[in-house]
Amino acid sequence: MTDRIFNFSPGPAVLPLEVLERAAIDIVNFQNTGIGIAEMSHRSKDFMKVAEDAEKLLRELYEIPDNYKVLFLQGGASSQFFMIPMNLLAPGKKASYLNTGVWSKKSIKEAKLFGEIEIPFSSEEQKFKRVPVNGEYTFSQESEYVYFVTNNTIYGTQFKEFPKTEKMLVSDMSSDILSRKVDVGKFGLIFAGAQKNLGPAGVTIVIIREDLLDRAPDNIPTMLKYKTHAEKDSMFNTPPCFSIYIVGEVLKWIKKSGGIEAIDRANQEKAGLLYAAIDASSGYYRGHAELASRSLMNISFNLATPELETKFIAEATKAGLNGLKGHRSIGGCRASIYNAFPKEGVVKLVQFMKEFMAGNPA
Amino acid sequence: MTDRIFNFSPGPAVLPLEVLERAAIDIVNFQNTGIGIAEMSHRSKDFMKVAEDAEKLLRELYEIPDNYKVLFLQGGASSQFFMIPMNLLAPGKKASYLNTGVWSKKSIKEAKLFGEIEIPFSSEEQKFKRVPVNGEYTFSQESEYVYFVTNNTIYGTQFKEFPKTEKMLVSDMSSDILSRKVDVGKFGLIFAGAQKNLGPAGVTIVIIREDLLDRAPDNIPTMLKYKTHAEKDSMFNTPPCFSIYIVGEVLKWIKKSGGIEAIDRANQEKAGLLYAAIDASSGYYRGHAELASRSLMNISFNLATPELETKFIAEATKAGLNGLKGHRSIGGCRASIYNAFPKEGVVKLVQFMKEFMAGNPA
Repeated sequence: MTDRIFNFSPGPAVLPLEVLERAAIDIVNFQNTGIGIAEMSHRSKDFMKVAEDAEKLLRELYEIPDNYKVLFLQGGASSQFFMIPMNLLAPGKKASYLNTGVWSKKSIKEAKLFGEIEIPFSSEEQKFKRVPVNGEYTFSQESEYVYFVTNNTIYGTQFKEFPKTEKMLVSDMSSDILSRKVDVGKFGLIFAGAQKNLGPAGVTIVIIREDLLDRAPDNIPTMLKYKTHAEKDSMFNTPPCFSIYIVGEVLKWIKKSGGIEAIDRANQEKAGLLYAAIDASSGYYRGHAELASRSLMNISFNLATPELETKFIAEATKAGLNGLKGHRSIGGCRASIYNAFPKEGVVKLVQFMKEFMAGNPA
Repeated sequence: MTDRIFNFSPGPAVLPLEVLERAAIDIVNFQNTGIGIAEMSHRSKDFMKVAEDAEKLLRELYEIPDNYKVLFLQGGASSQFFMIPMNLLAPGKKASYLNTGVWSKKSIKEAKLFGEIEIPFSSEEQKFKRVPVNGEYTFSQESEYVYFVTNNTIYGTQFKEFPKTEKMLVSDMSSDILSRKVDVGKFGLIFAGAQKNLGPAGVTIVIIREDLLDRAPDNIPTMLKYKTHAEKDSMFNTPPCFSIYIVGEVLKWIKKSGGIEAIDRANQEKAGLLYAAIDASSGYYRGHAELASRSLMNISFNLATPELETKFIAEATKAGLNGLKGHRSIGGCRASIYNAFPKEGVVKLVQFMKEFMAGNPA
């Protein structure tokens, strides 16, 4: 068996080793039931408890108020791009979207199918290298909600403060959910594909304020109404059982690690090490994001030339530092260091960066 | 470790033990890459090969013609109930649905949101104990497609011959896909949730004739167009990677077992043993389905009283025969014996049925 390598992949992303080792047992024989977790009826007492425990722990760790429903859905975050306006908007109604990257652009495109969309801020002309601060934008009075992507995976930007407004917030937190404390009560809806900070691909967490469940028009398909899933505790149809099970195990790992505050401190430390290495390189490594917008989850950076970047990525891979290639839309390098990414991997990358710089003067 | 028990669950359902044992290794360290299969980027060379190999093997085993696309989608079979009419019908257009159980009824409900639906056959008044044969129904000339559920999990009925018509067939094969040979070329679209015959919950297989990809109206959400997924080989967004991986492993197991014809023979033998036990019981066990409609996948049966059924299920569970409770809508007992269900489990159940009958005279 090869040693475990450091996996900087932007998602699906590294999972805690102890979760994987537990899963290796449970997939053949879940808790000595004689049945594996992936072949167990979703209506069985054993699996119902897995799903209930996962929800309970998510509520506890993220301090989700009682008037919110937690849903485990399929279809990826990309399906939320249309489900949100389909359920919450209507022809003639308006919503506000902050355009801070590819994922917000895709959301805007889908939302326009259902209502009028205003875009009070866009950093597209600045290659999405920053997110806005309060005061840089205003919303129309009649806007139903304010949509933004809390962390922009590709560009390595992250909202440090959320929009201050009386309006309901709606957020794609796919790439930083549970990485820091959030005042859920300010949001109408929060969603996140699991495959970055919470588990494997195949399940999307939706946290929705209960009064919003009744907003959907009658004539949309049953499966596309949040209410359908809320009323049946995400068991209207067969849920993605194995992915939910892993999310539950990751949540237990977060709790054991000290909860969200401890995870947040660890995230700040890890990202801090990496940004310090970039800043100490006298421009050899150049961060894509503006200082004030820097993400703790994804660190996107460039070297002097594409050729040097290719060499950097190839040699890093050989050294057991995997998945450092940047997104094709901006090129360069990217280190994704979500909750489960171990500090030792960051330390090793920082060391590698120093050695590479010494061995390959610009 | 408890011995593995026999899992008669209707879905999620039993998976081949060798697949689970392989998965137990790959989930920690996939093929010595140093990364587990559930934490691996879907854009990585390794995972791309997993998905490509799964598709290739499915095409080979099921003899899928070249002018069909194979998609790995999320949302369950229940999402196909609306995606099919959303993509293939339009206001004023008509389709024909054969009503043979709960799952066809649910499909009919969703289809009515998008077009005119005719129901040339329904066995609802007969408690869905049979499926129709050719000649029992006719279709309107202008009907766009004929929709039917090849196997009805709850009632234990299965189409032995498919509708003979010039019209395009559309089928929900969730509970009998790959259990027997099918002439895919007669179908416009075949779909199946994986969690009965193909893998774990969380991925739905869609086999669609290419010319149908262009039928969808422009104004439906991107994620709901089959074309979106077909053009990107099911990688438009992050797919349910782990479920796809397991489907690939199950397909390898089917090939190793001799392919679909060998699986079909085994299915006939398994179901034959169970039906023979029912028929030899002089009415102690009573099959729900009419003889000509009997399913090889789900055997639904009753005992004289609900009390006796409860006792039967409880004692069977103690004997390591799990998941025999019938669906709440018709009660009684149900043995689901999909492709991966081992013959030894059926033999053990038949033996148990004899002993129970002897010990509990009606």
